[in-house]
Amino acid sequence: MIKPLGDRALIKMKASEETTKSGIILASSAQEKPQVAEVIEVGPGEYVDGKLTPMYIKKGDNVIVGKYAGTEIKYEGIEYLIVKQEDVLAIVE
Amino acid sequence: MIKPLGDRALIKMKASEETTKSGIILASSAQEKPQVAEVIEVGPGEYVDGKLTPMYIKKGDNVIVGKYAGTEIKYEGIEYLIVKQEDVLAIVE
Amino acid sequence: MIKPLGDRALIKMKASEETTKSGIILASSAQEKPQVAEVIEVGPGEYVDGKLTPMYIKKGDNVIVGKYAGTEIKYEGIEYLIVKQEDVLAIVE
Amino acid sequence: MIKPLGDRALIKMKASEETTKSGIILASSAQEKPQVAEVIEVGPGEYVDGKLTPMYIKKGDNVIVGKYAGTEIKYEGIEYLIVKQEDVLAIVE
Amino acid sequence: MIKPLGDRALIKMKASEETTKSGIILASSAQEKPQVAEVIEVGPGEYVDGKLTPMYIKKGDNVIVGKYAGTEIKYEGIEYLIVKQEDVLAIVE
Amino acid sequence: MIKPLGDRALIKMKASEETTKSGIILASSAQEKPQVAEVIEVGPGEYVDGKLTPMYIKKGDNVIVGKYAGTEIKYEGIEYLIVKQEDVLAIVE
Amino acid sequence: MIKPLGDRALIKMKASEETTKSGIILASSAQEKPQVAEVIEVGPGEYVDGKLTPMYIKKGDNVIVGKYAGTEIKYEGIEYLIVKQEDVLAIVE
Repeated sequence: MIKPLGDRALIKMKASEETTKSGIILASSAQEKPQVAEVIEVGPGEYVDGKLTPMYIKKGDNVIVGKYAGTEIKYEGIEYLIVKQEDVLAIVE
Repeated sequence: MIKPLGDRALIKMKASEETTKSGIILASSAQEKPQVAEVIEVGPGEYVDGKLTPMYIKKGDNVIVGKYAGTEIKYEGIEYLIVKQEDVLAIVE
Repeated sequence: MIKPLGDRALIKMKASEETTKSGIILASSAQEKPQVAEVIEVGPGEYVDGKLTPMYIKKGDNVIVGKYAGTEIKYEGIEYLIVKQEDVLAIVE
Repeated sequence: MIKPLGDRALIKMKASEETTKSGIILASSAQEKPQVAEVIEVGPGEYVDGKLTPMYIKKGDNVIVGKYAGTEIKYEGIEYLIVKQEDVLAIVE
Repeated sequence: MIKPLGDRALIKMKASEETTKSGIILASSAQEKPQVAEVIEVGPGEYVDGKLTPMYIKKGDNVIVGKYAGTEIKYEGIEYLIVKQEDVLAIVE
Repeated sequence: MIKPLGDRALIKMKASEETTKSGIILASSAQEKPQVAEVIEVGPGEYVDGKLTPMYIKKGDNVIVGKYAGTEIKYEGIEYLIVKQEDVLAIVE
Repeated sequence: MIKPLGDRALIKMKASEETTKSGIILASSAQEKPQVAEVIEVGPGEYVDGKLTPMYIKKGDNVIVGKYAGTEIKYEGIEYLIVKQEDVLAIVE
């Protein structure tokens, strides 16, 4: 199990034509990296001036991330992205 | 539904020759990306030193954004831009 | 009407050989972008640590701006510039 | 013995196909630098405004680091990396 | 009249071989931009955390500025430079 | 005698195959700059907000520095490096 | 007379093979800019948060500066360098 550190999240990009919970098709052209991901795990948050700032994104959220955000990792044959919470642009509900 | 995070807004660029509420034609040459957009959704604001700084732009505002601001996303076949509030230059009334 | 946000101002560049209020000719070579502009509208100012810092430039001021400052916009067929107050170098009286 | 300073850690990259404690195979293509490492030693933490911020990673942790993080050193014929804690993305448990 | 804003000064570069008040010849090779200037006008100073930091250079000072500091402006046919006070390196007495 | 200023240290790089106090051979390939150095002199530390932050490295320490850290100087025919303490990665004991 | 502003110093580079007070020869290869200089004049120090931080280098000090630090000026036919105190690496005693 991968546990992100600080204010990072482990996310898994969704396939281009996947249906979200609310039934919406997220179209993404084949040449472009899909921008919608599922949050698999979140870190504890970041300490700022000795106080923990908790995370506002949570496990299971569908999120939109910037095209060049995060670090790609491969774990048990599956590709993930570790992103800082500030690089998560929006939540898809 | 897309809910922007932090001090971001989801905006939809207006067509080049569209008429605004006040009847003004916003001319934009065909080669240039139009700079006027409608605010579709705003985030909760940004936390600075543990305090939430609320948004001063709101849903329905017609705004002007810088030419290279924001991240383009496609959602249900429609193109949007997610921009940070600080990249919104002005409101058109 | 365009209402600048934050500590921005909407300014309109003056023609190269235009006479200012005090009768001075502002010569600017034809190849150079004129640097004197009239302030058309100012924003409310910027919030710093929760306090509003008011603007020190105001509507009607003739100002000098840096050559590459601001974002050009076209509104009702007229070209304007939206600049941050910190990019306004001086006032011409 | 190498004792990292500040909020740095001395880590040793794991071989590409090594089995972790929990039995997971961390596959990494041959062309890519493996991203999983074992923490060999940690520094005391960083002083911020006169107060020591202790380390949240510890000796023996299996961690994931960014691809270009840290400084490579060779010590007694073995290659290590000295990384800042902020460049450690996640812990593998 | 040009009134600099913030902690800026309006300065006029001296001719290369000009004599200063104290009779000193400031030699500057012909290919190089002269670095000594007279302060023509100063701004009110900069507001830092709501307090005005007054200027330490004043009208009439002979100052040395960095080679690439400031913005050139032409006013009534004369060339000036608007520089931030922090780019003024020294006073020549 | 060279007395470093602020939080800097004067260090002398060790020869590639030199034996440290604890008898360890620090192998460094011939093409690479050796990364282990002896601290010859340290500065008083840095003043942060009016308070002196003392140095945590000291005269005689064997330290590891980043490959491109510091400024090379030659003094009495011997080459030294002046580095900021933050560029010292670890102590070798 | 040149009076540096803020936390700057006016320094004069020493000839490559010059003897210092303590009789030491500072060898510097002919192709390299000598790095030892004499402090000719210092500024009053820098104001940080409204308080003056006094200078720790003083007139007459022999100092070592980084190779690309400061701004070269020519005054009464002699070349000087105006450097910020933070770019002075060490004092030679």
